[in-house]
Amino acid sequence: MKARLGGEEGKHKFVLKTPKGTRDYGPKQMAIRERVFIAIITCFKRHGAEVIDTPVFELKETLTGKYGEDSKLIYDLKDQGGELLSLRYDLTVPFARYLAMNKITNIKRYHIAKVYRRDNPATTRGRYREFYQCDFDIAGQFDPMIPDAECLKILHEILSELQIGDFLIKVNDRRILNGMFAICGIPESKLLTLCSTLDKLDKMPWEEVRSEMVGEKGLSPEAADRIGEYVQLHGGMDLIEQLLQDPKLSQNKLAKEGLGDMKLLFEYLTLFGIAGKVSFDLSLARGLDYYTGVIYEAVLLQQENDHGEESVSVGSVAGGGRYDGLVGMFDPKGRKVPCVGVSIGIERIFSILEHRMKASGEKVRTTETQVMVATPQKHLLSARLKLISELWDAGIKAEMMYRKDPKLLKQLQYCEDTGIPLVAIIGEQELRDGVVKLRDVATREEVRMSLQQVSEVFPKSSWSQKALGFPGAPLKSCIVDLADKCSFLLAL
Amino acid sequence: MKARLGGEEGKHKFVLKTPKGTRDYGPKQMAIRERVFIAIITCFKRHGAEVIDTPVFELKETLTGKYGEDSKLIYDLKDQGGELLSLRYDLTVPFARYLAMNKITNIKRYHIAKVYRRDNPATTRGRYREFYQCDFDIAGQFDPMIPDAECLKILHEILSELQIGDFLIKVNDRRILNGMFAICGIPESKLLTLCSTLDKLDKMPWEEVRSEMVGEKGLSPEAADRIGEYVQLHGGMDLIEQLLQDPKLSQNKLAKEGLGDMKLLFEYLTLFGIAGKVSFDLSLARGLDYYTGVIYEAVLLQQENDHGEESVSVGSVAGGGRYDGLVGMFDPKGRKVPCVGVSIGIERIFSILEHRMKASGEKVRTTETQVMVATPQKHLLSARLKLISELWDAGIKAEMMYRKDPKLLKQLQYCEDTGIPLVAIIGEQELRDGVVKLRDVATREEVRMSLQQVSEVFPKSSWSQKALGFPGAPLKSCIVDLADKCSFLLAL
Repeated sequence: MKARLGGEEGKHKFVLKTPKGTRDYGPKQMAIRERVFIAIITCFKRHGAEVIDTPVFELKETLTGKYGEDSKLIYDLKDQGGELLSLRYDLTVPFARYLAMNKITNIKRYHIAKVYRRDNPATTRGRYREFYQCDFDIAGQFDPMIPDAECLKILHEILSELQIGDFLIKVNDRRILNGMFAICGIPESKLLTLCSTLDKLDKMPWEEVRSEMVGEKGLSPEAADRIGEYVQLHGGMDLIEQLLQDPKLSQNKLAKEGLGDMKLLFEYLTLFGIAGKVSFDLSLARGLDYYTGVIYEAVLLQQENDHGEESVSVGSVAGGGRYDGLVGMFDPKGRKVPCVGVSIGIERIFSILEHRMKASGEKVRTTETQVMVATPQKHLLSARLKLISELWDAGIKAEMMYRKDPKLLKQLQYCEDTGIPLVAIIGEQELRDGVVKLRDVATREEVRMSLQQVSEVFPKSSWSQKALGFPGAPLKSCIVDLADKCSFLLAL
Repeated sequence: MKARLGGEEGKHKFVLKTPKGTRDYGPKQMAIRERVFIAIITCFKRHGAEVIDTPVFELKETLTGKYGEDSKLIYDLKDQGGELLSLRYDLTVPFARYLAMNKITNIKRYHIAKVYRRDNPATTRGRYREFYQCDFDIAGQFDPMIPDAECLKILHEILSELQIGDFLIKVNDRRILNGMFAICGIPESKLLTLCSTLDKLDKMPWEEVRSEMVGEKGLSPEAADRIGEYVQLHGGMDLIEQLLQDPKLSQNKLAKEGLGDMKLLFEYLTLFGIAGKVSFDLSLARGLDYYTGVIYEAVLLQQENDHGEESVSVGSVAGGGRYDGLVGMFDPKGRKVPCVGVSIGIERIFSILEHRMKASGEKVRTTETQVMVATPQKHLLSARLKLISELWDAGIKAEMMYRKDPKLLKQLQYCEDTGIPLVAIIGEQELRDGVVKLRDVATREEVRMSLQQVSEVFPKSSWSQKALGFPGAPLKSCIVDLADKCSFLLAL
């Protein structure tokens, strides 16, 4: 991906690359990305979400004090006079700023956009400095755990639909963690910094996390050990009931509240039929400062390693939780708007699908062209330009070669290379007869028809169908009228 | 949009706003934006384009020396250690960098993304510091003016489809400008800086442009006056023929080449049936350094002023041209890849459509929800959760209120407010009978049916249809099976 350049004339002395931790998406990658986005957007819309967009940068102070220890990863813009700006670190803080600024107290929205983190990413594992987040959030004062349960249902629907292998959704609650720390004798002031440490449990063993707690965070070894016992617990309704009986934990007000809500959540998840994929896990902490209640994270259980190639190791692919205080941090009077949301990190999902596509050798069409306009003799450029113009005006996806006199074989080869299924051939004879020869690239069957008939072969599709029809699909549904005129049209 | 904050506790001392020159898009604006994008993407795909994406920032040096006097408007990122980065200024330079880096010599691609310019924008006129560009480019060595003509055809198709009023596409050629400057006795070294000045002709009168040429750019008054005569010329094939006879201009090699190609271009535009909307205009210069041949710009001729409100004054909405040297600037051996492209600036188009929508009072749905799941009595949350879960799993767009026991009237009111056409009501009686009552919100007609039948009312739509179906449309095409069971389903 790199090439150090030093042209003979000394003109080109620079590195030809994308910035560290970023990448281009070529047409094949974009075809995969489009499919993933459509699956996700479809799900968000199925749940009645509106969509918003915000600028890629915010005032620096908007982001200050929201991300705890991760704040050092924020990209700042250079001070070029005027406001101090930073690239957004996630879509949650801009959402909260948007709500406070527009005094919105009730909204269900999604937002799909790139976010920026000056991390040291392992790009082979699908981690980047510029990456997409697909966020769905519900803001408003509602009855407990109903919107929270819907977020988990959405997560379950999306991960199922994408078919990226088995997954598990871990849930916990900041209030339960808070209570757990309290009964282990740890002051509340250490809660957030300890959550950051605890959050590393999916990447390092408990022993290392423990030594960071004792060493860096100043915990007593005894307190750390007491925590160690709790964070090994995970289960379902049974564990919730067990902890509700725990003599110490059940006496802590916050923990009791959190456990009560966790019980409610599992009841709703059972009604949704998804409790089997959800694990109440006391080791889950989530690194960000702004969570106040339930938190969750989805992890993939299987690795893609069918072909003996380097495995695409993936961990967390989505996460989220409740953040009831964040909007209030932006409101002049501190008015709170309770929020809960889920964020899908599609880069890892994308890595898996891309890897699978490559391994399978599946050929992906990167255009949707329905018909190639071709000429078999010289001096027919005008006829080609006129015909293709009529096809475009009729809403038909058509291409031609940008040559005055291309060879017919080259034009047919282009169709084979790019997967165009039909060729509209206009030669001297066709021009005289006022017809076009329509040819099936695969079977080589041909049929002569009038210009009028050609455009009727492809009826005008609606805006939305035209926009997102996937390769292959549009054409099949297009052949409606002239099927009796030639057998191959039926077969398409 | 601003609110200076100073909370009682002194916590909230900051300005609650988006950065200067940027804005949020709310759900209604996003609905309009989605329609514009779909029209544009549909057109690009109709012309067989692939799609790519590149990072929002590039190495600073990638952008250096590409934009002439506009370079001062580039956003730089703060040096936080590591590479020096800048936000992209357009999509053309990243495209050229992508081609050179991947050694691609032949591609037809589109790219829709935000670009960044530290301009002093008049946001009321639809100009922003963060704005979308929708770019279509054809790279490769082809016969003259065939891809160039297609770019203009695309521009014509998009501006026609968007129905934003009458428009004119101005075209010129950098080689003709070059020849014009040469025969007016101006050295070639001044070409680019004079193009920057000439580019202001659409914003200021000739007299002011002339005085900048003489004052700042050091032209003799006589040379400026000779240029002044040329830049007043505009027309079609007749003007091209006239200039081909011009004794001075026709002797200049570059101008002659440019005029010959311009003639070819107008022949192709005539075959495409769009020459009437294209004007060969010698005052068109385009500010950017990288153009080498034909250049063009689309301007709207009419202003939106039907309602006596402040007019949305708009000028250029799209532009582009040929840049045969840009890819070579990135190639270690300077290998050139000829390119031509068009860039649609949708912010102004969007301003017009938004203004028109507001003026018409048209109600825009911002969700696609097909059915509301409601209960008429208390203690039925479980039934609602179970039913909505089944609807979601069947691919139906469904919502419910996040309340344990909402009043039926409130649930129906929510449908009216948000445009949801159907309500699936599940009460005690329905629960006993194992049925659901489906109600048409508008007509209040009701029909009882089994759960199985309910999900058959909305057949599973395909991915792409589900994703982009516009409000209203999906439902109409959904009612397939149970129409004989109740009259209102037919009417939907």
